Amino acid sequence: MGERSLIQEFRRHPPGHPWLIVGPGQDCAVLRWGQGRDLAYKIDQVVEGTHFTLSGPEASTPRRIGWKAMAKACSDIAATGFWPVAATVGANLNRSLGDDWALELHRGLVACCERFAFALAGGDISSSDGPVSVCVSLLGEGPAGGAWLRSGAKPGDWLLVTGDLGGSRGGKHLDFTPRLEEARRIRDLAGRGVHACIDITDGLARDAGHLCDESACGLEIDLAALPVAEAARAAAQKDLRPELDHVLGDGEDFELLLAVEPTAAQALLKQWNLPTRLTRIGRIVPKDAGRTLVEAGGRKAPMPDLGYEHATEKDA
Amino acid sequence: MGERSLIQEFRRHPPGHPWLIVGPGQDCAVLRWGQGRDLAYKIDQVVEGTHFTLSGPEASTPRRIGWKAMAKACSDIAATGFWPVAATVGANLNRSLGDDWALELHRGLVACCERFAFALAGGDISSSDGPVSVCVSLLGEGPAGGAWLRSGAKPGDWLLVTGDLGGSRGGKHLDFTPRLEEARRIRDLAGRGVHACIDITDGLARDAGHLCDESACGLEIDLAALPVAEAARAAAQKDLRPELDHVLGDGEDFELLLAVEPTAAQALLKQWNLPTRLTRIGRIVPKDAGRTLVEAGGRKAPMPDLGYEHATEKDA
Repeated sequence: MGERSLIQEFRRHPPGHPWLIVGPGQDCAVLRWGQGRDLAYKIDQVVEGTHFTLSGPEASTPRRIGWKAMAKACSDIAATGFWPVAATVGANLNRSLGDDWALELHRGLVACCERFAFALAGGDISSSDGPVSVCVSLLGEGPAGGAWLRSGAKPGDWLLVTGDLGGSRGGKHLDFTPRLEEARRIRDLAGRGVHACIDITDGLARDAGHLCDESACGLEIDLAALPVAEAARAAAQKDLRPELDHVLGDGEDFELLLAVEPTAAQALLKQWNLPTRLTRIGRIVPKDAGRTLVEAGGRKAPMPDLGYEHATEKDA
Repeated sequence: MGERSLIQEFRRHPPGHPWLIVGPGQDCAVLRWGQGRDLAYKIDQVVEGTHFTLSGPEASTPRRIGWKAMAKACSDIAATGFWPVAATVGANLNRSLGDDWALELHRGLVACCERFAFALAGGDISSSDGPVSVCVSLLGEGPAGGAWLRSGAKPGDWLLVTGDLGGSRGGKHLDFTPRLEEARRIRDLAGRGVHACIDITDGLARDAGHLCDESACGLEIDLAALPVAEAARAAAQKDLRPELDHVLGDGEDFELLLAVEPTAAQALLKQWNLPTRLTRIGRIVPKDAGRTLVEAGGRKAPMPDLGYEHATEKDA
């Protein structure tokens, strides 16, 4: 079965509550807490061996691990268009790591809290002889009924993406900036025009597929429009695979993929003035039309089954 | 340094937020979310080797581990007098454990959610070759400004305790009932008369000390009044230590210790009709009067330095 099937079990009969308006299966759960503001709720973890390594040439520093753990949860809040308010952290350290290591981990966590002005509200720390893991729970807030979900995309919507894609495992995955400020600006400029959103963690092809699954639609992606990260070019030179494979398939981009109503999308792109790029890469089509890549000459090909899947991690 | 000093670091300069009205150092953080209701926020974990074992004569089942992980976080919500609304779970499994094991863990988690009618809102699952850990984040709700804290006890307050004390490691620690219903009834009956509360996880002596530290007060405990658990008697027969050592020092009782204004406490005890015992065990005194045990004859002795400390776990 593995984790994926267990997660299906999680989703099948989740105990509910009258305040829970969005349950497992989205980037965040959403609770109707007060009258005017909803609450986004997320748990996420980074584990040694899966999300970072402590030995070898790619060994990470504890500060970068702390940043990544917190930023990864922030990326999910960004995908709802909400803003983080408070985090709590459960850390499992390894007994062989010293005090300085733990303090540096703490500094990385705090740096992300301070960067986006939210609280570190509590923590729980254990030690074992096993791999290090850092579990982050995060609360975000936004307008009641206004959380962006993976569902809601409609045929005709424009597909937009923040930043550049591919090659994140070359380094960006450890110190990326979660797209909270971009999401806030998009909400300000596009209002209710944003129909759906997901953060790209498994690669564009796979996460676009998740958005289609949840919205019961198809999509067309214009190959020529895809924003190629410098790191994707470097990765392609290194492993001799096509650049496009990296752009479509590499994981941990932590960029936002949005389906936006065309008039709102047009206005949004026109007024966009943040340093992070915002690019139109395609459109939502009816489900029957499938999921296709459109080459520069207009030739269509089915979306390839590329994608980065953490072999050992699933979230609900 | 270890975990305790790291936690001190956590508490020293925690990044805050205008909505965070109680930060690290209490059983839960408290956020002012809506207008009339506050939010209690907790993260807590159980780790193989520290909170349960998977081998030997005391090996636990995955269902009991799931229950314990969720109930432990509920106990902290109970200590604030709030009620749980939604949980998220980050689980690190071991690759050698099969599907049935994971499903049983899930059933244990769900059983606790269903028992107290709150949501399982999401999860994140990883696998490694290391020890199993289950990290639970929990949100609770209660009246604005009404969360019970460790601080607030005043000289003259009566000290009350739920249930019986001692010997929990003999079995109760895996399937205890968090005192949520008791806390709700206490709030109903005593209103604002509850000045402070803590859940007993490190043993009565140590947690009573935490309450005194945070409230800047002393206390007297009447030895003859202490409710002795059957399991404490069994533990004393087994290890030939005094029964009292188990009552005062054993960890993971998960009972509530409350400081209650005397008139309210009297009314509360008079009207108490839940099956769980509620016992007056002493009183709060000024800080200068210290922390003492009062024997049946009236002789006083200083509180012994007994207590159960998870050598490898601290929370903030």
